[in-house]
Amino acid sequence: MRSNRHPSVSKSFDLSGYISRVCRSVDSALDGFLPAEKTKPATIHKAMRYSIFAGGKRMRPAICLAAAEACGGEWKDAMAAACAIECIHTYSLIHDDLPAMDNDDFRRGKPTNHKVFGEGIAILAGDALLTQAFEILAAAPRRSRHSPSDFILDLARASGSLQLIAGQVADLEAEGKTIPIADLRYIHEQKTSALLCCSVRLGGMSVNCTASQLRALTEFGYNVGLAFQIIDDILDVTQTTEKLGKTAGKDTTSKKATYPALLGLEKSRKEASRLTDRAFAALKPFKKRAAALNALAEYLLKRDH
Amino acid sequence: MRSNRHPSVSKSFDLSGYISRVCRSVDSALDGFLPAEKTKPATIHKAMRYSIFAGGKRMRPAICLAAAEACGGEWKDAMAAACAIECIHTYSLIHDDLPAMDNDDFRRGKPTNHKVFGEGIAILAGDALLTQAFEILAAAPRRSRHSPSDFILDLARASGSLQLIAGQVADLEAEGKTIPIADLRYIHEQKTSALLCCSVRLGGMSVNCTASQLRALTEFGYNVGLAFQIIDDILDVTQTTEKLGKTAGKDTTSKKATYPALLGLEKSRKEASRLTDRAFAALKPFKKRAAALNALAEYLLKRDH
Repeated sequence: MRSNRHPSVSKSFDLSGYISRVCRSVDSALDGFLPAEKTKPATIHKAMRYSIFAGGKRMRPAICLAAAEACGGEWKDAMAAACAIECIHTYSLIHDDLPAMDNDDFRRGKPTNHKVFGEGIAILAGDALLTQAFEILAAAPRRSRHSPSDFILDLARASGSLQLIAGQVADLEAEGKTIPIADLRYIHEQKTSALLCCSVRLGGMSVNCTASQLRALTEFGYNVGLAFQIIDDILDVTQTTEKLGKTAGKDTTSKKATYPALLGLEKSRKEASRLTDRAFAALKPFKKRAAALNALAEYLLKRDH
Repeated sequence: MRSNRHPSVSKSFDLSGYISRVCRSVDSALDGFLPAEKTKPATIHKAMRYSIFAGGKRMRPAICLAAAEACGGEWKDAMAAACAIECIHTYSLIHDDLPAMDNDDFRRGKPTNHKVFGEGIAILAGDALLTQAFEILAAAPRRSRHSPSDFILDLARASGSLQLIAGQVADLEAEGKTIPIADLRYIHEQKTSALLCCSVRLGGMSVNCTASQLRALTEFGYNVGLAFQIIDDILDVTQTTEKLGKTAGKDTTSKKATYPALLGLEKSRKEASRLTDRAFAALKPFKKRAAALNALAEYLLKRDH
């Protein structure tokens, strides 16, 4: 039945091969964009690289590059956008993990940045990666429909005080409180959906997508992003620390509002599934070119860690 | 004698009136660029505005707007650049003041951001102002010689891990150590000179300056920036807390490397003066149009707080 609902997902699509190729290409591009580890002052570049190369799944770059493909473009043209987004994502993790925020000791199975380099350097490494993102985008080539400043405006809005940072603030303020589901949805929209949505948008814009393609990518990105965060909530209550690579059950311990806590596990799973269906629907106009985006969305819904 | 050496500085230049007008214009523009205080989530916008409107001297915006004037342009065309730079400057102060960094309780005579809003929000308010800077620049109009992405590249480099953040890292690492004067100069170049230099460059670029004008502005900005920081060091050892509006003598207490500590007061004053002379020399090609830039440089060298 699933293949009927999502006709453009080929059963033979080699997603793990695709993700491996994304990781290799993005790692290589990031290695070129970031100052070398020995560049003075070495501490900050070591700290930036420690978190950038800490084994992230490169989900946002993958979605960015797959969106470029869906619009008929090539990876190389969207690589700057993919790397800029990964810099923003990594900076937000470094700062979120700080003792003054979520106070996490582990991330992706490794000690968090401030546990290795100290809080001062961790704050600065986050700042530096945030700044690096805009430097990378500013050097990207102009397209006839979209200029580098369009990319930067999109990324700055998605990462700014009305979206990514808004989500983190609302999250901090909700800690230990019982909040309505609408407030939790707001947190997830800002904290996760905004940047995932921006990832697909920048992928499309990097290969000169049309206005209607951009609308479809936005709808896809928004829904996948929200589903992704709900699944994160679900995994936190159902998985072990070992499998997640971070401290599991932490959300429950610190009485953080989560979808399972507010809606229950089954309803949360249904909501994630409903959002993913909407995401798939948005991809129809792209037909077979959206095979990778479709497969990535399937993966996000089915993942168990 | 001074008027012979700096012929374009009119004795009748009303600098305090000029700075007042800069402050009013920049405050009004920043008020328009930043989300309103009540915008959800209100905490972050209150925190951003608390530090942006904490009574800063707007020295970087003034230098940016005066550089636009020197190139024959108008303030309004450089206002986005002036505000973006003030956002970067303010973010760097908020993060520098954190307990994990310089651990300062007062700034401009008021409690620092984290003393009012807590560390988590202070970190995020800094992040948000950094992001806001690029959002402001990305929306700036294109000039025939310089595009918004040129501005962004310049600002990202000046603020990134090779300059502004490099200076802060080197500063952190030098704490409690005796370092050679070359290392202290590197810290000052990156921590202060880079952003001041960027301020004049963006002022010129915003009004479509030529390549040779940009070179002259760069030379001016670099030298004024370095002089400015040496004077900061001098004032820290010679002034009282009340007059400075921040904790005086702190650099001595924490055994921070400063120019007076390494070179002595008189040699430090001479070095600041030498750099300012080089700055004045760079302004000669702009003739009378550089009156405000000249007056600002004079003020930076003569200030006593």
